[in-house]
Amino acid sequence: MTMAYTDERQPAQGRRDAEATKAAIVRAARYLLARHAHGDITLKAVADRAGVSPPLILKYFGNKDALFSGVMNFEADVDALLDAPLQDLGRHMVRSVLTGQAERGVDPILRIVFAPLHGAQGDILRANFRTQVSERLAARLTGDDAGLRAELAVGLLLGLGVMYGIARGPHVRAAGIDDVVDRYGPAVQAQLDPSAP
Amino acid sequence: MTMAYTDERQPAQGRRDAEATKAAIVRAARYLLARHAHGDITLKAVADRAGVSPPLILKYFGNKDALFSGVMNFEADVDALLDAPLQDLGRHMVRSVLTGQAERGVDPILRIVFAPLHGAQGDILRANFRTQVSERLAARLTGDDAGLRAELAVGLLLGLGVMYGIARGPHVRAAGIDDVVDRYGPAVQAQLDPSAP
Repeated sequence: MTMAYTDERQPAQGRRDAEATKAAIVRAARYLLARHAHGDITLKAVADRAGVSPPLILKYFGNKDALFSGVMNFEADVDALLDAPLQDLGRHMVRSVLTGQAERGVDPILRIVFAPLHGAQGDILRANFRTQVSERLAARLTGDDAGLRAELAVGLLLGLGVMYGIARGPHVRAAGIDDVVDRYGPAVQAQLDPSAP
Repeated sequence: MTMAYTDERQPAQGRRDAEATKAAIVRAARYLLARHAHGDITLKAVADRAGVSPPLILKYFGNKDALFSGVMNFEADVDALLDAPLQDLGRHMVRSVLTGQAERGVDPILRIVFAPLHGAQGDILRANFRTQVSERLAARLTGDDAGLRAELAVGLLLGLGVMYGIARGPHVRAAGIDDVVDRYGPAVQAQLDPSAP
């Protein structure tokens, strides 16, 4: 029994290490993609920042473009962002942005702002953003102009992320998350459900 | 009389040419500062993009850092952004962002999103943004938590600018400006004047 337990635990530990390493590589790629043009970022720069070897990145991700296209994908982040019933979705999305920013220094959608750095890759980022974020939210909405209302709601979330994570507004960073959700959530909800009070 | 007229006109024409050239140089600097790290931008790159010679930039702006610090200043843009009575300010600011984006491809405050590109210069940009944009708006507000409400209102405007100018949301770009002002202005006004209906 002890042996079996150990045998099971070791591969699990190895999987956890591999997942942690992959996450460190993705974090390094995100950091660099927010600061440098796509074409100026070397595999070595990503490896140095992640504290791993370049061959390990190739082992996990295949090549640099495959790593970057993963970072330029919003699907996994948007699953969590949209995981609430429609009547609570405005507050839930605001809270998701704030908790990501405050607790982990990440934002589910804010990396779209770096599209201008990346030339043609920036257009891929924009297309992914449209289909994976705005249109996916629009598909949840009923009523007229769902596409426009979804873009405005997403714009509201982007603005909060810029103010918190990039402009680093001291008041919004010092405020309690519940307070900001109470103040900002209704504006998002009003786009999602214009008929609500 | 004709002579006097010509004498007066020539300097005026010269001043107009100089202003147009300076504006082209500032546009070139803004373009490059949205795509490259501050330290990677050469005077020659700005000159090439503006269609002028590097010495002409030095003549007008002194040096590259003086040119860039002008671009990293929000004061002139914010004069126009805030030029409305408080009860109309939300709609006015939304309209300012939309008309700048739609008619001139510029935004009064959006360049704050490129702060992460610019290292220590990014902190200057953030400090300018705080004093020249958020705090200046906060000084217009009455009631509790004016600093926080101003940051949230500015965040709303930033988000609209990101959606329009960077993510290039097709619905918000296709919508009429009046329509977007009607939909988005009340969210901004609610931060400025929470007691209003």
